[in-house]
Amino acid sequence: MKLYDSAVAPNPRRVRIFLAEKGFTMPHVVQVDIAKGENREKAFLAKNPLGGVPVLELDDGTIIAESVAICRYIEEVQPHPVLFGTTPKERALTEMWQRRMELELFRYVTGCFQNTHAFFKGRIHQVPEYGEVCRSMAQTRLEWLDSELVERPFIAGPHFTIADITALTAIDFGRVSNIRIQPNQKDLQRWYDSVSARPSAKA
Amino acid sequence: MKLYDSAVAPNPRRVRIFLAEKGFTMPHVVQVDIAKGENREKAFLAKNPLGGVPVLELDDGTIIAESVAICRYIEEVQPHPVLFGTTPKERALTEMWQRRMELELFRYVTGCFQNTHAFFKGRIHQVPEYGEVCRSMAQTRLEWLDSELVERPFIAGPHFTIADITALTAIDFGRVSNIRIQPNQKDLQRWYDSVSARPSAKA
Repeated sequence: MKLYDSAVAPNPRRVRIFLAEKGFTMPHVVQVDIAKGENREKAFLAKNPLGGVPVLELDDGTIIAESVAICRYIEEVQPHPVLFGTTPKERALTEMWQRRMELELFRYVTGCFQNTHAFFKGRIHQVPEYGEVCRSMAQTRLEWLDSELVERPFIAGPHFTIADITALTAIDFGRVSNIRIQPNQKDLQRWYDSVSARPSAKA
Repeated sequence: MKLYDSAVAPNPRRVRIFLAEKGFTMPHVVQVDIAKGENREKAFLAKNPLGGVPVLELDDGTIIAESVAICRYIEEVQPHPVLFGTTPKERALTEMWQRRMELELFRYVTGCFQNTHAFFKGRIHQVPEYGEVCRSMAQTRLEWLDSELVERPFIAGPHFTIADITALTAIDFGRVSNIRIQPNQKDLQRWYDSVSARPSAKA
């Protein structure tokens, strides 16, 4: 099993945190230098035509791209500790929150970065006005998340799940675009301090 | 079990197709009129603060929002026919393709619609230039999907899965924004004809 990783991007970090929570040691790790465009070179595109990292290569040559698909594979081969929920209801609620963190937070944080940051100048067609819409949406979603966290310790309920990993990664990556937890968002801050203190957060 | 549905929107259609493939009859279905803004009324927002449909309400009052989370719950309570993959590897590949269809196709199709269509005028801050980026990205992704489908009958491999449902719904909804399969995209067209001919496509 071989993981194509990249130290600076938010999606690979989700997988690293997931592996750290599992106590799973990846046998082989290859660093892909995104700044140098290694993910746009022919050898890498043969593995993932979309050019995204991370990518997991199984021993039989099967390629699993997409961070959440890689995490789900690891959950299957090493079920404990459970990070996608235990019962059908828990699994559905974890999926709901994972998806909300993905589409309502992670997407806006990366959308703001991609459309406003110098890193993507010349790499994609940037639309700064849309970047500002994303920034504003991300901030609105942090407010909402703060209100959701009044009643429970973690994003999807009583347990730490992949939804916490996605939210943590999104919020940390948001700093680059000045998207931050606000002083009045006490429950969100309490959650953030708690998940950031886990050893996996350093991954 | 009660499903809050909406006949005109693409996300609820994904769940209806999924249920039709399963042969699962939902005990209660409530139509939510999006055009009238019923999804923005207090009673509905108490169920889903984000205002999105579909929403599944379980008999114990648990709310499961997000189309894919609802589908995953149904897969748990009625496993056959399998629509999320059977083995760990199949499940990871299904997740990979489901996520690609979600983030690389469905997202751009709806992004184009939301940022260019009169329906969203005054409802959201529209950025037409970003809508055009989405249109162009969606068309690029259809080309890529055509090349992927040369070698296999369905999006994720030999079996029909939720990834096919997401792709079909995205492509059909793309018509409103004039995002269409091109005449040279023969393998994509063959796939489209085959999944559209399934009785579930009428759902």
